[in-house]
Amino acid sequence: MSEEYRAMWEGLGINMRRHDMLLTALPEVYRQVYLSQQRRPQAMGFYDFVVSEIHGLRVKELMDHKATGGKVFGTFCVYVPDEVIIAAGGIAVGLCGGADFSVPTAEQILPRNLCALIKSAVGFNIGNVCPYFQAADLIVGETTCDGKKKTWEILDEYVPTYVMDLPNSRTAADRELWIGELKRFVDKVQATTGNTVTPQGLAEATSLINRKRAALDRLFELRRARPAPISGLDALLAVQISFYDDPARFTLKTNELCDELEARVKSGEGAAPARAKRILYAGTPMPIPFWTIPALIEGAGAVVVAEESCTGSRLLAGGQTAIPGDGIDSQLAAIADRQLQTNCACFTPNDARIDDILRMVHEYDADGVIHFSLSFCQPYNLEAVRVQKALQQAGVPVLLLEGDYSEAQTGQLKTRIEAFVETL
Amino acid sequence: MSEEYRAMWEGLGINMRRHDMLLTALPEVYRQVYLSQQRRPQAMGFYDFVVSEIHGLRVKELMDHKATGGKVFGTFCVYVPDEVIIAAGGIAVGLCGGADFSVPTAEQILPRNLCALIKSAVGFNIGNVCPYFQAADLIVGETTCDGKKKTWEILDEYVPTYVMDLPNSRTAADRELWIGELKRFVDKVQATTGNTVTPQGLAEATSLINRKRAALDRLFELRRARPAPISGLDALLAVQISFYDDPARFTLKTNELCDELEARVKSGEGAAPARAKRILYAGTPMPIPFWTIPALIEGAGAVVVAEESCTGSRLLAGGQTAIPGDGIDSQLAAIADRQLQTNCACFTPNDARIDDILRMVHEYDADGVIHFSLSFCQPYNLEAVRVQKALQQAGVPVLLLEGDYSEAQTGQLKTRIEAFVETL
Repeated sequence: MSEEYRAMWEGLGINMRRHDMLLTALPEVYRQVYLSQQRRPQAMGFYDFVVSEIHGLRVKELMDHKATGGKVFGTFCVYVPDEVIIAAGGIAVGLCGGADFSVPTAEQILPRNLCALIKSAVGFNIGNVCPYFQAADLIVGETTCDGKKKTWEILDEYVPTYVMDLPNSRTAADRELWIGELKRFVDKVQATTGNTVTPQGLAEATSLINRKRAALDRLFELRRARPAPISGLDALLAVQISFYDDPARFTLKTNELCDELEARVKSGEGAAPARAKRILYAGTPMPIPFWTIPALIEGAGAVVVAEESCTGSRLLAGGQTAIPGDGIDSQLAAIADRQLQTNCACFTPNDARIDDILRMVHEYDADGVIHFSLSFCQPYNLEAVRVQKALQQAGVPVLLLEGDYSEAQTGQLKTRIEAFVETL
Repeated sequence: MSEEYRAMWEGLGINMRRHDMLLTALPEVYRQVYLSQQRRPQAMGFYDFVVSEIHGLRVKELMDHKATGGKVFGTFCVYVPDEVIIAAGGIAVGLCGGADFSVPTAEQILPRNLCALIKSAVGFNIGNVCPYFQAADLIVGETTCDGKKKTWEILDEYVPTYVMDLPNSRTAADRELWIGELKRFVDKVQATTGNTVTPQGLAEATSLINRKRAALDRLFELRRARPAPISGLDALLAVQISFYDDPARFTLKTNELCDELEARVKSGEGAAPARAKRILYAGTPMPIPFWTIPALIEGAGAVVVAEESCTGSRLLAGGQTAIPGDGIDSQLAAIADRQLQTNCACFTPNDARIDDILRMVHEYDADGVIHFSLSFCQPYNLEAVRVQKALQQAGVPVLLLEGDYSEAQTGQLKTRIEAFVETL
């Protein structure tokens, strides 16, 4: 990457030696996993470009934004409302970590029995190897799991970390509590940016995020076709990039991708052969660059047709957010009501998630479900017990997997995934 | 035990072969750990008797209660209010499991990466080896950790399990939510027992539990003396038994113990020599019969002077519950306000727990702190990072341990505890 970026990274306090190691490894991995795929849509060129500029152009945009007094918010969960941040003139970027590279750094301060996502993210921060973390003016965590809830207390000693209290259930009282949390978040975002969240501003931001959600929703709808017009790997990449790219640009480019896929569906062209077994992925999110699971599934000759995950359908749950005209409080309630349709395993009960999975098997004409949970993620690992039971009762083949981001486990995962696809 | 008990257990559907194995092992363990101690208070005879009757007399009392239409509630957390259950004529028994014996049974249906307490309790239930589980008309769980929160959904398929939604924080909104949960619990308890919780009944039950709390509080106060008038093992046993014995009898017997300890303190008599190093235990609860940690500490020549734990000072947090005279709602709010002073690691922030530990080091004249967390208990394992830091900054020696109930780990724990005590 250019010298301009090197100066920017140095200015951000990046550990340049470690950062060089990280960026040197990525292109070869990306070539093997992504560029070697057959029958890719032309429009994937945009996402390839974004990855090639992963710590470059977008970080430059964030720095330009900051240079004019703008603020950057780093987030970890679809329950943190980008709408509010954008309405206050801020930029929201997802900071979930998907690389084993930074895990050992985190293990210097965190217990090992913690999921790879948390360790990867914390390692990126305290190891000073992620310009997004370095650029963030405020980290916004939430209480979705014990691991994150208690890690924020430790992370706050390194970087200012604000925590949103997402309740454990979704009763009327829990909903009230969460709406209160959204209001508290508006105050915090206003204080951080120095800007006021107006009804007009929040309506525009909600509309922008709605358009982005509609584009992603369109992508998911198109994936119902047989043959699958896009690989699971490519669809996942688009979703992963949605967490940190500029929302308007992302929407434009994803609609271009969907136009191309629509033409493919009409002409019966697929990214995979029509006879390829169709897999529904269900489980924990797959942050960039964790591509192992779809890579192994598609390497075994199957195709991933959808992800029931926060990097998948859970991101889109609740559809379009209503934009009532009677003020901020109603608008926040509408955001809450859309969000609370996201069936995170942090909730009890969460039976609607099982319903979602069964519905998606049907809608996406899936031949089987692969449920993957990061090790030590107790909410998803425990919920997998009931997911498996429900799928077995419905006669749907299911494989439960558990793992982390390390290459050491790839061999075993490959064997199990190949054996499962074989049986379909 | 008598034939009468065998008939009772069979009537409860107990797996008699496995149950015999369990009960056969206990007396020898108890002899080695408890009866071999020197300078035990005479009044410990009561608790020895209770243990000798562990699945006998008290279960018989529960069955007699049930025979007259009474109900039994099995609980797992100090946030589930015994006061409400007693006010409705019910009996509350703590069901936390402390034995490795039942863990493999639980692992047939639960992921392995789950704390031993949850696995032990679930294994006792689904393995039909715990008459308390079998006697319970309703299991009352809560959302204090991911492991329990999601396990209740699975357990509910085996036994009716009700869940109380304890929030993640303790803001005014969280307090309101919890008071609402207490009201919902009153409704559930009334529906289960068929009895009404009246202000008078709740006041009497609160007063009963207050007397029990006062007796335990007195026990803890007496342990501040040097030499320690009672071993950590014996004090822990009293606390463990408080979770399931009849509250009035327990209060009487524990006050008798305290009378004896008071005389010991006056005469300077100790269960351990005055020169014995004094250890504050902090961390996860130690349900009966998990005695490993104090046994190893006291086996190394030190004495445990207090436990910052739910089987310790957290059980007593908030002191006596106020009993306002203006109705049930105020009484429930008073219970909530007392409970919410219990600094469980499920809360964020939970800095007051660190303050508690530092205060207890001073009050109990502790020479060092041993923090033990069950493996896979993310709230306590993560909070240990900040506990350790705070103690080191205060110049207090601290040892962080992690483990489960298995004997396999005893050797390593013994080595680390002995080395720590040596350095004090």
